[in-house]
Amino acid sequence: MSDPSNAARETGLELMPRFDADGLIAAVVTDASNGDLLMVAHMNADALKLTIESGDAWYWSRSRGELWRKGATSGHVQKVSEIRIDCDQDAVWLKVEQSGPACHTGERSCFYRAVRTPAGTLERV
Amino acid sequence: MSDPSNAARETGLELMPRFDADGLIAAVVTDASNGDLLMVAHMNADALKLTIESGDAWYWSRSRGELWRKGATSGHVQKVSEIRIDCDQDAVWLKVEQSGPACHTGERSCFYRAVRTPAGTLERV
Repeated sequence: MSDPSNAARETGLELMPRFDADGLIAAVVTDASNGDLLMVAHMNADALKLTIESGDAWYWSRSRGELWRKGATSGHVQKVSEIRIDCDQDAVWLKVEQSGPACHTGERSCFYRAVRTPAGTLERV
Repeated sequence: MSDPSNAARETGLELMPRFDADGLIAAVVTDASNGDLLMVAHMNADALKLTIESGDAWYWSRSRGELWRKGATSGHVQKVSEIRIDCDQDAVWLKVEQSGPACHTGERSCFYRAVRTPAGTLERV
C-alpha cells in the first residue's frame, strides 16, 4: 500500500492495467439489460485496447492462443455499453448487449450450474 | 471439445474445478441484494472447499500468499447465498450478503471507475 504505483493505480484517473505473468487481466461480462453474469474471459493489452476503441468485445483465448473478437465466427457479438476497472486494475467489468448466447455451449450464460452446499455437487439452474 | 474430461466438466454434475498453473480459479462476487459486481478475487482448492462448507467467502491472496477469510480482520465478511460455476469450471460466481464495503479502499465495490471510450481515461462513477 506504500508503493506509489499502487496509490496511482487505485486513486488515479489514468488507465494502468496490471497484467499478470501471462500478460492477461480478467474480464467479467454482464448483460447490460438485466445485470446477469454472462461469462468470465481474459484480455491482453491488444484485446483491451481494441475493446476500448471499437466498442466490440475482444478477448485473448488462452486455449487457442489468439486474439478473438467475440462472435466473429458465431455471430454472437457483444456490443459494449460500459467498461469499468477495479481498484488495483487487474480486472475489468464489461456491460454488454449480447446477441444470442454468450456461452459456447449454447446457454445464455456460462454459469448454468449451482454448487450445492455443503455437499459440493452441482445442479442445473 | 473432443476431450472427454471437457465434456464431463461442461455437462456433468460433478465439481471438477480447473485450477490454473498457480492452482487458482477466478471468483466473481456480486451483491445478493441488488446484483452489483463487488469484486473479483482468486481461490485455491482450500479456499473453494472452505467456502462451500462454511458459507463464508474464503480466498487466496496472491499478494500475501495466504488463505484469507474475507472480513477476518476488517469485519467486512461475506455470507454466501449462492455459488455457481461456469462451463469449463475455471471461474465461480458468488452471490453474497456483504457487510460494509467489499473493497479495501472503503468503496462498496472495487469497480468505482469507468473507462471512457474511445479515449481510455478513467472517471469515477
